[in-house]
Amino acid sequence: MKTLINPDLKEWASLVRRPAKSVAQLDQIVDEVFDNIRKKGDKALYEYTEKFDKANLKSLKIEEGELKNSSKKISKKLKDSIDVAFENISKFHKEQKEKIQKIETTSGVVCWRESRGIEKVGIYIPGGTAPLFSTVLMLAIPAKLAGCREIILCTPPDKNGKINPAILYCAKLTGVTSVFSVGGIQAIGAMTFGTKTIPAVSKIFGPGNQYVTAAKQRAQNFGAAIDMPAGPSEVLIIADKNADAEFVAADLLSQAEHGADSQVILLSTSAKIIASIQTELKKQLTKLPRKDVAAEALKNSLAIQFKTEKECMQFSNLYAPEHLILACDNADELTKKVVNAGSVFIGKYACESAGDYASGTNHTLPTNGFARNYSGVSLDSFVRKITFQKISKKGIQNIGPAIEEMAEAEQLFAHKNAVTVRLKKLKK
Amino acid sequence: MKTLINPDLKEWASLVRRPAKSVAQLDQIVDEVFDNIRKKGDKALYEYTEKFDKANLKSLKIEEGELKNSSKKISKKLKDSIDVAFENISKFHKEQKEKIQKIETTSGVVCWRESRGIEKVGIYIPGGTAPLFSTVLMLAIPAKLAGCREIILCTPPDKNGKINPAILYCAKLTGVTSVFSVGGIQAIGAMTFGTKTIPAVSKIFGPGNQYVTAAKQRAQNFGAAIDMPAGPSEVLIIADKNADAEFVAADLLSQAEHGADSQVILLSTSAKIIASIQTELKKQLTKLPRKDVAAEALKNSLAIQFKTEKECMQFSNLYAPEHLILACDNADELTKKVVNAGSVFIGKYACESAGDYASGTNHTLPTNGFARNYSGVSLDSFVRKITFQKISKKGIQNIGPAIEEMAEAEQLFAHKNAVTVRLKKLKK
Repeated sequence: MKTLINPDLKEWASLVRRPAKSVAQLDQIVDEVFDNIRKKGDKALYEYTEKFDKANLKSLKIEEGELKNSSKKISKKLKDSIDVAFENISKFHKEQKEKIQKIETTSGVVCWRESRGIEKVGIYIPGGTAPLFSTVLMLAIPAKLAGCREIILCTPPDKNGKINPAILYCAKLTGVTSVFSVGGIQAIGAMTFGTKTIPAVSKIFGPGNQYVTAAKQRAQNFGAAIDMPAGPSEVLIIADKNADAEFVAADLLSQAEHGADSQVILLSTSAKIIASIQTELKKQLTKLPRKDVAAEALKNSLAIQFKTEKECMQFSNLYAPEHLILACDNADELTKKVVNAGSVFIGKYACESAGDYASGTNHTLPTNGFARNYSGVSLDSFVRKITFQKISKKGIQNIGPAIEEMAEAEQLFAHKNAVTVRLKKLKK
Repeated sequence: MKTLINPDLKEWASLVRRPAKSVAQLDQIVDEVFDNIRKKGDKALYEYTEKFDKANLKSLKIEEGELKNSSKKISKKLKDSIDVAFENISKFHKEQKEKIQKIETTSGVVCWRESRGIEKVGIYIPGGTAPLFSTVLMLAIPAKLAGCREIILCTPPDKNGKINPAILYCAKLTGVTSVFSVGGIQAIGAMTFGTKTIPAVSKIFGPGNQYVTAAKQRAQNFGAAIDMPAGPSEVLIIADKNADAEFVAADLLSQAEHGADSQVILLSTSAKIIASIQTELKKQLTKLPRKDVAAEALKNSLAIQFKTEKECMQFSNLYAPEHLILACDNADELTKKVVNAGSVFIGKYACESAGDYASGTNHTLPTNGFARNYSGVSLDSFVRKITFQKISKKGIQNIGPAIEEMAEAEQLFAHKNAVTVRLKKLKK
């Protein structure tokens, strides 16, 4: 990891820019798969699954028995750990339910909001070597709490046509309606258009490779909403001179192991702590199974020594990190200065892994600088907040004249008339 | 307006489909304008303004003096009406501020959310014959309440290079930071990339014609977020046999006058009230200045007689209207059955115009069936909700083992290690 000392303010804009990534032109491939799904439905899904996942499936839908049995196929220790995470994530997201609050804006005019779960949502869970069952928890728990009527989950099968039992266990635990063995562009297409087996959904959630990302982006052109734009994961750590170098290095590496395109940033006013952390990084790196991936990510990464803590915070806000760890004695104080970040970890013991798995906060967060304009996934992501208004005779008499005046000034005379007919009748 | 009686359930899917609209391929034009703005900056903006708005501007930015003077250029009556709307919209949106609620998910693990205003937001207000100053209120009031640091507004000038004073008055009243005389694709491009005069923003709000809509859609590829996908405005009214035909007809027309592509839908179990409303529609239509537009919209519109109230609600939820008016005696009861809608108007006196202007709710709402997956604009649209977590020694000891177990099962060993190093040190 390269170290910079007091970079000039002029350089900041280029320093916060994420490592350039050549984005392949995937729209054509996506369109082809989407077209095929619209034409051939389930048949296309079986064909693509055979082609890309090398699995010859008899059925796309996971049977209820397999979901029920999943708890027996994982260790008791893993099951108990998932249950701990389930409890904490549920507790945190449950409190995000908005209470109905009726507001009388003018005498006789009462307005309020009510949340309704999006009726049908889809969750995508990538395949590959590691089963990302934690993401099932992070998406299906708030979906269920939001009152979504139908929660479907698509994930690619392995060569033997199987889904990892930890994924199935989490789906069962959270109340997912149906699980389907389908991955990649074809899964996103199926959830966008619907097939005989897989229902179309209104919003698609979840991570994925560049194909899945391109497909989700494209799905928006066909009426589906998506959770947020995707990008490589990242962490920014601000460490003061009293930070624990071993902890900070471990946190940097836990982000770096995600992928060669991950980025980790370390900021400090202390040259000494930066040096200690760099030493620790080298030491810990050698022991990691995914050391090649992490080493590659560290090449794109930076340690920056600033003169003041204020500069550290300013740089962090400009960078807008997905994860921000404040490994500082005055971390509580610093939180007030956080403007742009996805999720913030305060103090020595709040490691990013805690939020990734089990503390209760959501791990689906805005990357790639999108923390400037997007929030992470929460209960809000699964509801629509509908406004309601109730207006009495007195209410329309109170605000009617203002509406008439404004509608006329906007030259919308039918808008004005809708009030006029009411006021006239009330005068009779 | 065509009347249908008890359409078969099989037909519903085609009935809720919005009138087909040929979407012009505008991406090429948008890309050309965007490229020019990136290359030539402000110069491109002046050129496009001369070309499209026929205005030869000396400056893009409206001077402070002109903003201040705007209140003198509108009538006292309009100013007072705007002030009424300002108060009500402020009251309603202020209550959407989320209080910080710290949750101890496990002993020693405290999680919460805090809202931060998006630092820079842009508001687009279309030009044309009518000055849509009400939209300035609907977007700038929540932006200001959310704590957005910089709120810019772009709107095209008339041929004389002027902006309507009602727009300027609303901008001044709501605390917009700067107003710029620029419209169309070039305004969206300027807010996306920034020029010497116009700052780049993180999120772009506001309505517009097909060019503006295409440009907003495209802006998302360059890092900007947008409020929501756009489409023609619409209303669905459920009227029972006691509804006031004159009121309902006036409400249908107030929506129909928006544009030839607007759609209005009337549902009822009463043939008699449908007939009365149709008669009233004809009567009121002749008196409207925009009768040609409204008549065109009515051609795309439907009155449907259903056997039961339940079917009316089911159809409404399938249609997912932007505006839903419940002109029924049991409207309060019916609200519980609303699943998909942008904003709901309850009873005889809650006309759509009230929500459009002055009751307090926001008029920027999801159209075109997007009420299935999007909420209207609210304070939420202008903030990011950042999660925070603070974990004590005891806290990490409590949840650490579960994190280690889950990380290992996902084969993310550095994630596991970030917990292991902490637990080990605590054992010492």
